[in-house]
Formats: sequence, structure tokens, C-alpha cells
Amino acid sequence: MSIISLTTDFGTDHEYAGLMKAVILSIAESVNIIDITHHIDHQDIVQAAYMIESSHPFFPKGTIHTIVVDPGVGSDRNIIALKKDGHIFLAPDNGVLTLLVRDDQPCPIHLIEDKAYFLTPVSRTFHGRDIFAPVSAHLAMGTPLEKMGPGISADEITRIDIPVPAFSGKHELTGHVISIDHFGNLITNISMEYMKKLLDARDGAGISILIGKHRITGLADHYQSVSPRKPLAIMGSRGYLELVVNLGDARAYFNAGKGDRVTVRVMKG
Amino acid sequence: MSIISLTTDFGTDHEYAGLMKAVILSIAESVNIIDITHHIDHQDIVQAAYMIESSHPFFPKGTIHTIVVDPGVGSDRNIIALKKDGHIFLAPDNGVLTLLVRDDQPCPIHLIEDKAYFLTPVSRTFHGRDIFAPVSAHLAMGTPLEKMGPGISADEITRIDIPVPAFSGKHELTGHVISIDHFGNLITNISMEYMKKLLDARDGAGISILIGKHRITGLADHYQSVSPRKPLAIMGSRGYLELVVNLGDARAYFNAGKGDRVTVRVMKG
Amino acid sequence: MSIISLTTDFGTDHEYAGLMKAVILSIAESVNIIDITHHIDHQDIVQAAYMIESSHPFFPKGTIHTIVVDPGVGSDRNIIALKKDGHIFLAPDNGVLTLLVRDDQPCPIHLIEDKAYFLTPVSRTFHGRDIFAPVSAHLAMGTPLEKMGPGISADEITRIDIPVPAFSGKHELTGHVISIDHFGNLITNISMEYMKKLLDARDGAGISILIGKHRITGLADHYQSVSPRKPLAIMGSRGYLELVVNLGDARAYFNAGKGDRVTVRVMKG
Repeated sequence: MSIISLTTDFGTDHEYAGLMKAVILSIAESVNIIDITHHIDHQDIVQAAYMIESSHPFFPKGTIHTIVVDPGVGSDRNIIALKKDGHIFLAPDNGVLTLLVRDDQPCPIHLIEDKAYFLTPVSRTFHGRDIFAPVSAHLAMGTPLEKMGPGISADEITRIDIPVPAFSGKHELTGHVISIDHFGNLITNISMEYMKKLLDARDGAGISILIGKHRITGLADHYQSVSPRKPLAIMGSRGYLELVVNLGDARAYFNAGKGDRVTVRVMKG
Repeated sequence: MSIISLTTDFGTDHEYAGLMKAVILSIAESVNIIDITHHIDHQDIVQAAYMIESSHPFFPKGTIHTIVVDPGVGSDRNIIALKKDGHIFLAPDNGVLTLLVRDDQPCPIHLIEDKAYFLTPVSRTFHGRDIFAPVSAHLAMGTPLEKMGPGISADEITRIDIPVPAFSGKHELTGHVISIDHFGNLITNISMEYMKKLLDARDGAGISILIGKHRITGLADHYQSVSPRKPLAIMGSRGYLELVVNLGDARAYFNAGKGDRVTVRVMKG
Repeated sequence: MSIISLTTDFGTDHEYAGLMKAVILSIAESVNIIDITHHIDHQDIVQAAYMIESSHPFFPKGTIHTIVVDPGVGSDRNIIALKKDGHIFLAPDNGVLTLLVRDDQPCPIHLIEDKAYFLTPVSRTFHGRDIFAPVSAHLAMGTPLEKMGPGISADEITRIDIPVPAFSGKHELTGHVISIDHFGNLITNISMEYMKKLLDARDGAGISILIGKHRITGLADHYQSVSPRKPLAIMGSRGYLELVVNLGDARAYFNAGKGDRVTVRVMKG
């Protein structure tokens, strides 16, 4: 029994996510559907890109990940699917899969074009229901990607300028807040890999983390390592640097927003 | 394996929807449950009526649609189930099924009265858990509607004045905003059928859509047919006229609310 | 096919709940997962304690109830599981299971310590994904609790001061608002058991319910027993006293909040 994961910005107050499930189960009645979220910030392709990149390894191989953050629905943008690490990712060709192809490892990518796998008729405003849902169900049932449209190369798909951290010399690294979760935790795009480069260069010195006018010293290893209502920086569950307030709300504490700069600096011995 | 769809105003911050599922799976362990939504505006029977009417065709035949928007819970209002187009609809008899019977096609309707299919005891405040959940599970297991209570005629069920669009002459049609979705899109009650009558009468002239002091010219066929942050009118995925702002929020743009009037007018050549 | 219920404060706007399900289904592919809620108020252990106590009887025996309201994640707090009434409850040892052991009936309790049942590596910030999800999946697959860690006695687990109602003489009972639901209904900690003691002492006199400067006379037996927008007090679906406004919002009506005192008083004949 395979799994389809759903990542959308549809919300749950209307029927949109439910109708995707109705269409999926009409075709693939024993598939398991897991909502990653339907609350991607409206049309925030970058947020969705980071979420699917860090989430997919926790799903079993063979999972179909269907990502519908799709401001261009109904325009002439393509729909693509790619295979990577034993997973299939199905999404509009708008850059939301950029992080999955940045390593330039070759992977099969196909345009999704064969209308035999779509609902009839296809609306111009809800491809989630009319294309993404039935296609993901057919993929889950074992229809090979190759049957759904021609293969294309990784060079041909849309990539977006996903904000990545930047070094200023060896001792300072600046990234951004990508996402703010339900607790008010600020999730940045500073990955473990970037942090390691910085930490390798510090020669035993400490680090400080700066956001706005605030400074945090050192990395915590769990939330309760500081007093209640005090801030901390920690490598979060996604493998990215997060700013958190123990038993509190970091968004409010730092008066921070999505896109804010976060700097990690090696303190001069 | 059959499907039960749930449409309620229970929200998801407490245990209410989860307990309906617990009771359903206690009885029908291999049924699939799909949430259409638990975020119907509180006790908004009209909103639920439009949602279930436009959503059910995307579910497979045999689906049980359980709608619990039920301000009269615990009073002497009846509970009914009706069969239509191969689907079963289970709801309080408060008018939420009005749109399904407006074509006056005969369909089997039964009162749900046999306590053998209810939990014991039945509370006076949560029939979703104590009646609707177990009854829908028994229906999904194949118990015929006829066993649950006496048949009644379509004349005997409660119908409510569902707001429908009205023509002023052949060239002007006025409807209302029924629902505002997560994107801020304004969903009206002006169906394709009504629009067709108007468009048939226009003799090649254009149309304009009016809401408050705003006017939109013509129907778009997808969101990106206008510039970012610009408004458009479009036949939405439900088959009803929607007012949308490309990459924006129509509710804010038009300063609009549920119930607001929307007029479609043939422009004089 | 067994059931795992999830009760967390993770929200649904990020991937947290979805990743728990991904991990569970990776191990136990045919388990049913039911969300009780992911919207426990942040780190509100008391709210979660009342919710799981009143919800679990509606699940079939054999259900694994996984409760992750866990401000101490990553610290040295323990994780425990206990068996009661044919259900298994898995939670951090932070008092969230206090209501289940207050009757001092002996029940098997085990520390969850065997890393063979955890993901590798275990993060310091997301035990929901790395410990609770895989352990609950293994429990659902039939792994006995005994294999996961040593047994402990009920005296050894953390209990918290769950607020309970207090009598002032035989004729007055004061409790608190524990939780406010999506409708604005105020759910108190005054259980049927406490109410019965008070009602038994009233000798035919009526009762009044006081919150702030407001007074309600008598208990209603359903919402529509008062006029629209009027308040009522009722024994709710959890079996606890609730303050409700018919077709309205009691939180707004009473200007009330979590923790507010609610007094039930026998009126002097």
C-alpha cells in the first residue's frame, strides 16, 4: 500500500484538500494519504521547497509527494514529476523542486501531459483536483512516469533563486528566516552543512547569532537549556538553524518576520 | 472499502472531529474517512449546503456524506438520510440538503430513528459522535437506509430559503457571496446555468461584474490573465462565479463580506 | 487493524504532524491514525490531560494514544507508557497522564528506553517524530510494552496539580474553565460526579451558576432551551459542566478566559 503526501496552500476551511483525497481514493482506493500541510503561506514556493526537501526522507521509499503551491494554475506553466532517492515528486514547474535538483545528480524528470490520467474536464483554476490528484493516484497504482509525458533534462525545468546563506569571510555567515511555525519558532535556511564550515573555522572561539538588535551566544542543544521566556539558537529538527524562545514565541520576542536576516558570527578570541 | 465524508463546523482545535472518527472506525474498521472540512462558519447551513452540493460528484458512488452543521442538536429536529446519484447524505433535517432536492427528482429519504444504530447513551449536545458517526458507519457497512427509520417524502423535509440569483430583465443578474475561502476568494451562488442564460442574451456585448463600488469587465479564464494584485471574475472550480485577486486577497481588495451582492450586467453595445 | 490517536500542540501549519504519520506508516503500514487534535494550546498539559481522559473511551480497545505536549523535549524528562482499560497511553512523563492514574487502580507503566524502537539519530527537539511515532507504531504492531523499558510504579511517575473543583460547604462548588472550544464554549473541570454531590444536597432547591458578574439559573438540557444569543449551563459531551451561548460565543459573552472561576451554588429555598 503506497503513500501519497500532500503539501498545499489550500487551507482546510473549504473543500479543496478533501476533493483531492476524494479523487485519489476514487482511483487508488487503498492508498494512504498524509497531509504534510495545507497551510503553506499563500503561494510561498520557497517555504514549500524547504519543507518538502527536509520532510521527504521520513517517508518510505515509493512515496508520491504531491506539491500544489501553484500561483500559475491555468496558465501555460508545465507540470512535472521527478524521481529521486526512491521518491516521486509531482509539482507545477515553478521552481518548488529547485532544492531537490541543486546537487545536479541526474534524475528522471517527465512532463505530465497525457490527459488520459487527468479528470475530464480539467478546470482552469483547480489542477489540484483535476490533474495532481488523479496523476498521483495513478503513480501510486504503479503507472510509470514515462507513460505520462516526455522526459526532460534537469536544465529544462524552472529553478528559482532560493535564498541561500552567504559567507562574509570565513567567520560570518548570513541567512534568512524561511518559515515561522505554530510555536513562533523562526526556521532559517542555514543548514548544518553551512554551520559546519563556520564552526570548523572558529579555532575554538564561540559563536554568536544576531537577528535585528538581538544577540544570542552559542548554540543550545535543547529548549530547556535556557530559562523560561529566554531565547536560544538551536539546530532544529529539519537540520536548519532555528531561533526559539523556551516556552515562548520567538516571532514576538524578536519582533521578527519571514525574510529577516540572521547572522552567525565567530566571536574573536 | 467505502468512504465517509465529513462536513462540520466543529473546528479541529478540540476532540470533536477525532471522536467521530473513533466511533466510525470502532464499527467500520476499514472505511476511509475524508474530511471535506470542519470549518464551516459556525452554524452556516447555507454555506454547508453549497459545499456538499458541489463537492459530492468528486467522490465515488457509494460514499456516505455526513454533514453535521446542527444548531438544533438535542432539540426535537429530525435526522434524515437521502440517496441520490448513488451517494447517501446524512444530516440534521434543518435544510442543509435543500439544494440536493430542489430538482424535485424523487429520491429515497428516511428518518434516522432506530436507536440500535446509535451510541448508548446519546448525549443532548454531541449527536455527531453519538448518532451521525455510528449511523454513517453502519451505512458504510451496508445496513440499508430502510432499516433505520420510516421513509418520508421530499415534501416532508425541511427546506430553507437558499439565496439564489435573481434576474432584473434579461440583462442583469444579481447573486450573493456565499463563502470566502482561505485565499480570500469570494465564492458566489451564481452558477454556470444562470450565467449561461445571461450570456445567451447578450448578443455579442461584453459583461461587467459589480461588487460594492467596484466593476470588473469580462470573465477571465485563469488567475494569471490579469496582472498581479488585479481583480478578476472567473467561473470557479465549483462551477460558480468567483471574484479573485491574482496573487492577492479579494476579500480585502473589495472590502467584502459574506452575503454581499454581486451583479453581472450585459454592457449595452 | 489497530488505531493510533494523536494529541499534540504542533499545529498543522508545518510538517510536524505529517512527519509523525510518515514515520508511523513506515513501520505499521496498515494502522489507522486519528488526530484528536494538534491544537492543544501551546504546552498546556492540563488541557491535554482533560482531553485525553474524556476522549479515550470512544476509541476501541487496543488503541494507542500518543500525546506529545512536551515542553521538556530533549531534557532528561522520561517517556512513559501505561496500559489502562485496554488502551495504551504514550506520553512524556510530565504529568499529562495524571487524570488517568488518580484513581490509584494499579496499571502497568513502563519507561520507554530501548533505542531499538527509536529513529536513528534522535534529535533533541522533535521526539514526536523520532521517538513517539516509531514507538507507537511498534506498539500498534504488537510489540509488548515490557520490551521497551523497565516497569515502574504509579508512585514514580510525575503528577501535576490538575485543578479540581472545591466545595465551600455542601452548597457551593467552584471550578475553573479548562478549555475554550471553536464555538467559544467554556469547558470547565466540574464533572458529573462533582455536580451529583451538589445536586444531592440541594433538597429540591434550584441552582445558579456564576462566572464573573454573570449568573445563570439552572441547568439546560440542550442548546435551544434558551433563546438565541442567551447563555446557558449544560453538562457537555465530555461529561463536564460547560457554559454556552445558544447560537453565540460564550467566551465573548462572558468576556471569559481559560482559568476563570466558575461557581455552582444551591439557591436557598
